[in-house]
Amino acid sequence: MTRIDLNADLGEGFGRWTLADDEALLGLVTSANVACGFHAGDATTMRAVTRDAAARGVRVGAHVSYRDRAGFGRRFMDVDPGELADEVLYQLAALDGFARLVGDRVRYVKPHGALYNAIVHHEAQARAVVDAVRAYDPTLPVVGLPGSAVLRFADAAGQPTVREAFADRGYLPSGELVPRGRPGAVVHDGDEVARRVVRLVTTGTVEAADGSSVRVQADSVCVHSDTPGAVGLLGALRTALQEAGVEVRPFVDAATGAREVRPS
Amino acid sequence: MTRIDLNADLGEGFGRWTLADDEALLGLVTSANVACGFHAGDATTMRAVTRDAAARGVRVGAHVSYRDRAGFGRRFMDVDPGELADEVLYQLAALDGFARLVGDRVRYVKPHGALYNAIVHHEAQARAVVDAVRAYDPTLPVVGLPGSAVLRFADAAGQPTVREAFADRGYLPSGELVPRGRPGAVVHDGDEVARRVVRLVTTGTVEAADGSSVRVQADSVCVHSDTPGAVGLLGALRTALQEAGVEVRPFVDAATGAREVRPS
Amino acid sequence: MTRIDLNADLGEGFGRWTLADDEALLGLVTSANVACGFHAGDATTMRAVTRDAAARGVRVGAHVSYRDRAGFGRRFMDVDPGELADEVLYQLAALDGFARLVGDRVRYVKPHGALYNAIVHHEAQARAVVDAVRAYDPTLPVVGLPGSAVLRFADAAGQPTVREAFADRGYLPSGELVPRGRPGAVVHDGDEVARRVVRLVTTGTVEAADGSSVRVQADSVCVHSDTPGAVGLLGALRTALQEAGVEVRPFVDAATGAREVRPS
Amino acid sequence: MTRIDLNADLGEGFGRWTLADDEALLGLVTSANVACGFHAGDATTMRAVTRDAAARGVRVGAHVSYRDRAGFGRRFMDVDPGELADEVLYQLAALDGFARLVGDRVRYVKPHGALYNAIVHHEAQARAVVDAVRAYDPTLPVVGLPGSAVLRFADAAGQPTVREAFADRGYLPSGELVPRGRPGAVVHDGDEVARRVVRLVTTGTVEAADGSSVRVQADSVCVHSDTPGAVGLLGALRTALQEAGVEVRPFVDAATGAREVRPS
Repeated sequence: MTRIDLNADLGEGFGRWTLADDEALLGLVTSANVACGFHAGDATTMRAVTRDAAARGVRVGAHVSYRDRAGFGRRFMDVDPGELADEVLYQLAALDGFARLVGDRVRYVKPHGALYNAIVHHEAQARAVVDAVRAYDPTLPVVGLPGSAVLRFADAAGQPTVREAFADRGYLPSGELVPRGRPGAVVHDGDEVARRVVRLVTTGTVEAADGSSVRVQADSVCVHSDTPGAVGLLGALRTALQEAGVEVRPFVDAATGAREVRPS
Repeated sequence: MTRIDLNADLGEGFGRWTLADDEALLGLVTSANVACGFHAGDATTMRAVTRDAAARGVRVGAHVSYRDRAGFGRRFMDVDPGELADEVLYQLAALDGFARLVGDRVRYVKPHGALYNAIVHHEAQARAVVDAVRAYDPTLPVVGLPGSAVLRFADAAGQPTVREAFADRGYLPSGELVPRGRPGAVVHDGDEVARRVVRLVTTGTVEAADGSSVRVQADSVCVHSDTPGAVGLLGALRTALQEAGVEVRPFVDAATGAREVRPS
Repeated sequence: MTRIDLNADLGEGFGRWTLADDEALLGLVTSANVACGFHAGDATTMRAVTRDAAARGVRVGAHVSYRDRAGFGRRFMDVDPGELADEVLYQLAALDGFARLVGDRVRYVKPHGALYNAIVHHEAQARAVVDAVRAYDPTLPVVGLPGSAVLRFADAAGQPTVREAFADRGYLPSGELVPRGRPGAVVHDGDEVARRVVRLVTTGTVEAADGSSVRVQADSVCVHSDTPGAVGLLGALRTALQEAGVEVRPFVDAATGAREVRPS
Repeated sequence: MTRIDLNADLGEGFGRWTLADDEALLGLVTSANVACGFHAGDATTMRAVTRDAAARGVRVGAHVSYRDRAGFGRRFMDVDPGELADEVLYQLAALDGFARLVGDRVRYVKPHGALYNAIVHHEAQARAVVDAVRAYDPTLPVVGLPGSAVLRFADAAGQPTVREAFADRGYLPSGELVPRGRPGAVVHDGDEVARRVVRLVTTGTVEAADGSSVRVQADSVCVHSDTPGAVGLLGALRTALQEAGVEVRPFVDAATGAREVRPS
């Protein structure tokens, strides 16, 4: 039976501010990328999301970021790789503390925003992220874009990797994402998002911007949590996947105690 | 043989800024209170101090603080106890991540600055600190002032406690510290500091501000790290203790694997 | 003809986060308390709100705060009065820069949150706020609670003052607010809020928690902007005031060029 | 008579931390680049430095930066130009508030660190800086590297510009600085620094890394303030300039009330 993991960004408030409907989203995703305080997230939010995720069997990942709360981690920063590695470790360990509180652990690391994008190509920063995760726990999976520098370095180092696709993003014939700002970069229609994800999961292909079919390997599909209607879209997607006979479950298989990184 | 632990605040820089001579101090103290990023300290400093401390057999403690970098954690903040507990946990877990990297662990928690002072009397915040440490690790000692609310609550909860004295502070006949700003609050002369600490450790008493002898129980003596001449003063103190036959060693006894909180 | 000023907190987002519906509120209030970056607000938000307020004839006030973004300025901080005065000046001058851009100026200072509450009684901090405003511009009004330390010091120094009432708060027979958490502290019903404000403005009295009539002098009425339904409540309030023959206009009278602090 | 302005970075502490010996430096420079709170500087430091500079006739410039205290503004950030312009304005206006307090004004803007370097080539950010300064005050000079994008845009817009040389940096035959990290990037010997600056000021040339003579036009010379020995080096430089008959005075001529940007 085919299966897929659905992940979304959670805990992206800070103090007085909130962003997504974390409560509702935790009922729909199987993996929660939890902000660790650098682009968003505070200690109380981290504790609450980690606890609620554990209660629902949702896997918690460290959504590590550049230190840039004002920019929500969405601006490239030319951070020294050594310092970046230390900051990734800091965030990861802090979140892991809250996971341990409820008998759980951080199950994966997914870099956020501009850092996520940078380490598709920026080799020094990509290595820094892998070094940090590896130093913390050599069995902890790194989530990234297939073909990205960060997944290549992780693979080479023996660190588990999770290949990610985006539910609402268009693809180029090369398999890369259509850059934001270009036509077809974002798929807005919920039904089309559901159709595309079902096709991706069941056939391993998506329809590219030019109408051709492109092969995309994905262990997890990211659904954006902070757009209006995110909860509805995610609900519809789950229904469509169920009807297509796809099991929605974490890429991390808690039942066996092992981290099954690639469902294959 | 009589023994004592010497602790000091380390890693209190931030980015471009530094404060104490951490390198030299690590050769003289037996316990290092390491800033965790809330009043001072950044990820790179935390990694470096934790690594260097482990290499020298110095015990690492989490120097947790209010979230107040601009005020260096020295201003009382009326933080909600639940949020304070979460922030203590965040800091503790982050530092512990760096300690684990070098095969070590955080060995104790010592609140910093205004938080340290507040929880002498502020019961809700004192309970929050104890709750946080206890939730993280019920065997982790809390360092505080003898008779403080935080040590009382910790004792009552079965959490190990470490009673602390201050090398360069005057005492009232009641055993409390002479408040800062009053005559005799701070002892500036290095020789006198050394004499007072030797007396404290060997007899369990100090000379109070009025000349009377007051009983002070201490498992650890704090030496301020950020005053000019701190390294020299600490060196002289160690020599004086050695000459008096006092062994300077961590209150945490790594050799036995057990946390010997009170050397007695 | 009786008249009143209506003020609300605006620009309380930060980066990715927003709070109130600033756009709609600017069409309903006559004075906008604009966050200056310490509890909320960033440079881009400050510029936008200041520009939009000027375009609509809404007066801009500096909503100065403790430096506490994580706590949204809602936690008392024991800040040194000299530093507090400097921080008030910093915020005021920064906002004034954006007001000057559009040919306007900051027209008043209203401390935010915990600072607002503290300087009802905390004399050293109240003096610090007055000193800062006075040093910046001795004609700039300070908004505060009638009878508060900050208004007393401002009056004594010859600094203009604006007495504020709260649309949705209950009053004690003494004329003080019913403390939050007690029954009657907050009036939730929109119709009742409108009735109470109309009575306050037209008669100078409100019905206290015990049913007695209490005299309350107010030059401006604050409407909370970040509760659900704030825009609707404010619209209904404006209609009720209009029907009662009350003119809603800024306490600062731009037409005469003078700051008419007390409509009398 | 030949003359030159000497500038240095001041007020680069934050809260508990300090960096340079501001007191001594204010006796030696003629222009002080004052940190505005984004890479360094707090309100109390800004007030003190601005007051002390005014008292000594030292001109105050806004040392505006990316919002990056942890990185001391030394890391490139891909900030949206509109937001960057707003943040430059915020910093400039805040500092100007302190200058007004003592009857002075901010006399120029000098971007700091990574922003300074970025706007040598990054046109969108360079335009943003010019736009911000221009919007605030179209007569306010911008300090930058000769030939930089920021000075070109400022010139084109009619905004005054100040061309800057660096006392302790090596030059390429092209007139550009030897990149940091390469041999000859930094001149460490105080006597050589003094000789080079005297030659630069009196002849308009420096000896490039390959021994050739390169023409460098400078209205101001920057002396790094945070290296050990900065005060001594600056004192020796002033003596050398005096002996060479060079007058050290601000590029801004307060006596005439006009901003003489280029002494020519």
